Amino acid sequence: MTEPTRNDEQDPRPAARVYTDLAVEAHGVFGAHAVADGIGIPGVHVETQQIGPASVTRMLIETPQAAQAMGKAQGFYSTVESPALRERNQEVHQEIAGVMAEEVAHLLQRLGIGPEDPLLAVGLGNWNSTPDALGPKVVSHLLVTRHLHQMVPPEVRGGLRPLAALSPGVLGITGIETAEIILGVVQRIHPAAVICVDALAARKTERLGTTIQMADTGIHPGSGVGNKRFSITRETLGVPVVAIGVPTVIHAGTIISDGLDALAAHGWSEPALGPGSQGGPGAFLPPGEKERVLRELLAPFMGDLIVTPKDVDVLVDDIAQTVASGINAGVHPSLDLSNVLQYLQ
Amino acid sequence: MTEPTRNDEQDPRPAARVYTDLAVEAHGVFGAHAVADGIGIPGVHVETQQIGPASVTRMLIETPQAAQAMGKAQGFYSTVESPALRERNQEVHQEIAGVMAEEVAHLLQRLGIGPEDPLLAVGLGNWNSTPDALGPKVVSHLLVTRHLHQMVPPEVRGGLRPLAALSPGVLGITGIETAEIILGVVQRIHPAAVICVDALAARKTERLGTTIQMADTGIHPGSGVGNKRFSITRETLGVPVVAIGVPTVIHAGTIISDGLDALAAHGWSEPALGPGSQGGPGAFLPPGEKERVLRELLAPFMGDLIVTPKDVDVLVDDIAQTVASGINAGVHPSLDLSNVLQYLQ
Amino acid sequence: MTEPTRNDEQDPRPAARVYTDLAVEAHGVFGAHAVADGIGIPGVHVETQQIGPASVTRMLIETPQAAQAMGKAQGFYSTVESPALRERNQEVHQEIAGVMAEEVAHLLQRLGIGPEDPLLAVGLGNWNSTPDALGPKVVSHLLVTRHLHQMVPPEVRGGLRPLAALSPGVLGITGIETAEIILGVVQRIHPAAVICVDALAARKTERLGTTIQMADTGIHPGSGVGNKRFSITRETLGVPVVAIGVPTVIHAGTIISDGLDALAAHGWSEPALGPGSQGGPGAFLPPGEKERVLRELLAPFMGDLIVTPKDVDVLVDDIAQTVASGINAGVHPSLDLSNVLQYLQ
Amino acid sequence: MTEPTRNDEQDPRPAARVYTDLAVEAHGVFGAHAVADGIGIPGVHVETQQIGPASVTRMLIETPQAAQAMGKAQGFYSTVESPALRERNQEVHQEIAGVMAEEVAHLLQRLGIGPEDPLLAVGLGNWNSTPDALGPKVVSHLLVTRHLHQMVPPEVRGGLRPLAALSPGVLGITGIETAEIILGVVQRIHPAAVICVDALAARKTERLGTTIQMADTGIHPGSGVGNKRFSITRETLGVPVVAIGVPTVIHAGTIISDGLDALAAHGWSEPALGPGSQGGPGAFLPPGEKERVLRELLAPFMGDLIVTPKDVDVLVDDIAQTVASGINAGVHPSLDLSNVLQYLQ
Repeated sequence: MTEPTRNDEQDPRPAARVYTDLAVEAHGVFGAHAVADGIGIPGVHVETQQIGPASVTRMLIETPQAAQAMGKAQGFYSTVESPALRERNQEVHQEIAGVMAEEVAHLLQRLGIGPEDPLLAVGLGNWNSTPDALGPKVVSHLLVTRHLHQMVPPEVRGGLRPLAALSPGVLGITGIETAEIILGVVQRIHPAAVICVDALAARKTERLGTTIQMADTGIHPGSGVGNKRFSITRETLGVPVVAIGVPTVIHAGTIISDGLDALAAHGWSEPALGPGSQGGPGAFLPPGEKERVLRELLAPFMGDLIVTPKDVDVLVDDIAQTVASGINAGVHPSLDLSNVLQYLQ
Repeated sequence: MTEPTRNDEQDPRPAARVYTDLAVEAHGVFGAHAVADGIGIPGVHVETQQIGPASVTRMLIETPQAAQAMGKAQGFYSTVESPALRERNQEVHQEIAGVMAEEVAHLLQRLGIGPEDPLLAVGLGNWNSTPDALGPKVVSHLLVTRHLHQMVPPEVRGGLRPLAALSPGVLGITGIETAEIILGVVQRIHPAAVICVDALAARKTERLGTTIQMADTGIHPGSGVGNKRFSITRETLGVPVVAIGVPTVIHAGTIISDGLDALAAHGWSEPALGPGSQGGPGAFLPPGEKERVLRELLAPFMGDLIVTPKDVDVLVDDIAQTVASGINAGVHPSLDLSNVLQYLQ
Repeated sequence: MTEPTRNDEQDPRPAARVYTDLAVEAHGVFGAHAVADGIGIPGVHVETQQIGPASVTRMLIETPQAAQAMGKAQGFYSTVESPALRERNQEVHQEIAGVMAEEVAHLLQRLGIGPEDPLLAVGLGNWNSTPDALGPKVVSHLLVTRHLHQMVPPEVRGGLRPLAALSPGVLGITGIETAEIILGVVQRIHPAAVICVDALAARKTERLGTTIQMADTGIHPGSGVGNKRFSITRETLGVPVVAIGVPTVIHAGTIISDGLDALAAHGWSEPALGPGSQGGPGAFLPPGEKERVLRELLAPFMGDLIVTPKDVDVLVDDIAQTVASGINAGVHPSLDLSNVLQYLQ
Repeated sequence: MTEPTRNDEQDPRPAARVYTDLAVEAHGVFGAHAVADGIGIPGVHVETQQIGPASVTRMLIETPQAAQAMGKAQGFYSTVESPALRERNQEVHQEIAGVMAEEVAHLLQRLGIGPEDPLLAVGLGNWNSTPDALGPKVVSHLLVTRHLHQMVPPEVRGGLRPLAALSPGVLGITGIETAEIILGVVQRIHPAAVICVDALAARKTERLGTTIQMADTGIHPGSGVGNKRFSITRETLGVPVVAIGVPTVIHAGTIISDGLDALAAHGWSEPALGPGSQGGPGAFLPPGEKERVLRELLAPFMGDLIVTPKDVDVLVDDIAQTVASGINAGVHPSLDLSNVLQYLQ
């Protein structure tokens, strides 16, 4: 186990670069709902399945080359999507939580985590900022059981996995890198794996609140809504890290950049060159031009402006309950809650 | 006094229209810091003054014609601006609160409100959504005195104005139009005026958290971060309404639209026409084209996406304290707080 | 409809007086679970029934004389009790919410409120103080529908009652008597009845979090955790007021006073008199003596100290969800939520 | 450095035992304001000084024997008291924060902590329960600087001590002993000392919100409002632990027990014995009798009921700001805040 050290890869989110945390959006060929196998990138395997109201996409990015081509970390991703997540129908939400639970269980199984192995759930993000509060909110709904393990009689304990949970806060609140706090706690309580929950950045507005991504890749610098500068991965923590997230924002640079590209794609071009002169109709804007416009619009918050729905509080509250249900059912699968809950303080 | 009725003016914020709540941004000719008299619109009077770290712009929109030309309600606006509001220097914030207090006092005086006349402060917006929580946060810091008026002995009461305060919540939380709740309370407690505090939408990123607008115009449908559908004005409440706000967001449609315009302003144009062919370099995009791009990017939240800084929680917390200090000092000008505060429970 | 005026009855909670908000605790002869008809007070009718995990006590205090004898307002009380409310078994909580829903529906029916008549729910109390936050928490979980009534198509609207909701805050926060704010809103939106939810004070610790009282009496001065000084009743609002509450505290004076009485009941007495000399074993303490001890212990918060469980946050969160479920099912009885919820914002 | 292990001393708070976290209340001979040297217990040194509106008591418990006699851990205690802390006069609060800052600085100096040595502040307690939320609230107002140390230019850095801050939550929320989380973080970031802030239990109501205790003893099992089961001390963390606390509650058992004792002290006694027969007037109750009464009153929350002011939210908010000001000024003594603050995020 090594020290968490600052990752010196360049921040992947300069204002002018299109950014997404979602593997299913990562490559240009993916349409919102048209992820298919045979994507054509060697080392990337994708399969999609419709289960009730949700579509489930499992993607394996197998090689470093595939990771580079996709712009996403190597590993296994499972993505549950449903436009119904934006409606407030509790029954449908519960159904999707059930689908999600299967994927959580599958991920833990792939990592060799046994049904009674202890886990640590971590809510990343800033509880004071609604779009970034998803992680702490999810964690506040989890069925924390680590302290109860000895209290619950063995005959009703069946499948009671010790689950601990922590929302460490962000650097601006604690003065400590989140990765350091997690590593410190991991080294004390020795979970078999860490589950990190975080608010993500998407590329498309229709993803906001409708897509739940789970992966065995951990958390990489620059991901999510806040400013993560250190990895939270198996390499830095010494145990596997499952990352669970839902997009709640789009980076402002991404959405404007996509707007300019859309225009260029329809043939708009620089006056000096004229249509067809260089790239012809459909040519993308030269990056210098786009960056200039973006810099003008986004300063003085360059790269730190987010696009989010006005009613992001409702979106976050609803999806947080669903994600928490999915995790609870996924990590405590054989638990008869009605027996155990009475032992909860 | 009439019933508050739904204002059937079209919502001023379709996705493709550039929108701002700020009078100082309202007309194209205003640069960020270059508001000057002799603006050239008949019926609009402007004067700007630097006071310590802040610039103060007083603007009078005198006629309905001027209001139409400006796209802002007729009335008196005072705007305090300082980039220093985004630094966390408490002394400077206190200095700017002092400048703001003068403007609050000036506005009340213009409206004929005496120094001991009772006031009702209202925090508009949704406390669950950080960018929209400014109003409730400011109101939670106000020195509420209405219930103390009889408790405080007359000899130390000097200048103790009865101030009541309310954060009614938004339509989605209460099922009641905010304007209805305020009218109901006004009709019970009969304040001499209402002060509404609200988070605003700006056009330029450099305005976020740096500009405090005060006006005697009340609150109009479609303003602010949330979805106001009814006026909160002297016409609907029967008493003058002072509106105090700070921009915390930009509408997503506005920032993208401005991006496309910036591109067009540099000569980019449609391929069929080529540069110079019709509008020539500097021509704005045909609205149809811009709207198409915006619709594609902003659906399914069309018109309901906001752009805001990642650390909007810090921005809102800091400015809320400053605005509250400014209001406290402006409405309780001659109050020796150290004498009165001991009577506050 | 009259002005809400300050009720000049003496505050019923001087430190040395035993106080309870619960009708089932109001008279000495009531044991915790032994409420029986034939209680012997003319004008008081009681019946108790066990329904699943809960016992339901319906009590009618029919005459002013009976009210005086009981120390409770004249009216109809329904009380749902279950020690299981303090366990965290969600299924049992849902079962008890179902029992509660029946009682809410019964109360509305007794008051002549039709199934589609509009209601206003009010969360009384201070959201900043955990033991007093029950009302605002319950209200935040209610299915507010007033603003949706027109949006939901008639064919799925069946039974959609317009429900509005408000948490006005307490006098120290607003400077306005809660009764004034409610009256103002009632006069604007004209509900058929008001449902007030409030944290209550009990006499016995086993009541905390385990007893849900519903009554058609409204809210009287001095009740609940906070300092209500004005009635919230049919007399002051002009419409019937259903009061729903759960005890979260015991007044400190009550619990100490009961302790001293318990001692006296076992024969402890004043030295000058000796046992049996005056009152004999079992005599209660002379009030003067008890008051002296209480004053010494409770100053400088005389009468304003509460006794509450350390984990009152868990108690309030759990019971708030159950009470909200009970109200939701009671006021929207025929609603197929899965159809309607999709129209919610 | 050893593992934090559960301390098997009996919990010092059985319902029937009088309990206080305050050293100045620890011994019977101390009146509220009459702490004097020459107290007569060998190994206990006390001196009291009036500084402006506050009295400051420094107490050294020098030997294990003295610790046992006092019922308090061996170490140095500094206690700042002022009834003015319950008035809401900001100037007086600032003055008392200044007095407190001197004591914080003195404590750090006694421990050999240099002015630029790094510190970790920890907010103990449950942010969801108002009386137990003092620690997290204080920590939220601290000037966290650890992450800024490199960002601030050396020429304005003078006296900028790296300060980190954490509110780990309580066992019921995390499933992890608080002591474990702190130890994990200490082992990662290596502060020179830890400052723990916690809500305390007092014996007398006049102490609530008016007494600030600072000590170099760390935190011992059973102290504070919540249920601490592990020590947070130099022995368990490997670095000195400064404990700062303000009483916000009295244990219910303590206040009732004191009530019964007060009665007994006035000569009340058992009937069989009669006055004077055994203990005579002034005899304390036999413990068995007191425990029986307490058990009857406090079940089913035996030992877990607290007494607190109704407006504990106001008390906690006010004192949290004052304590935070005191710590900020005490740990950053030579800091010219106006220079540094602009570098804060």
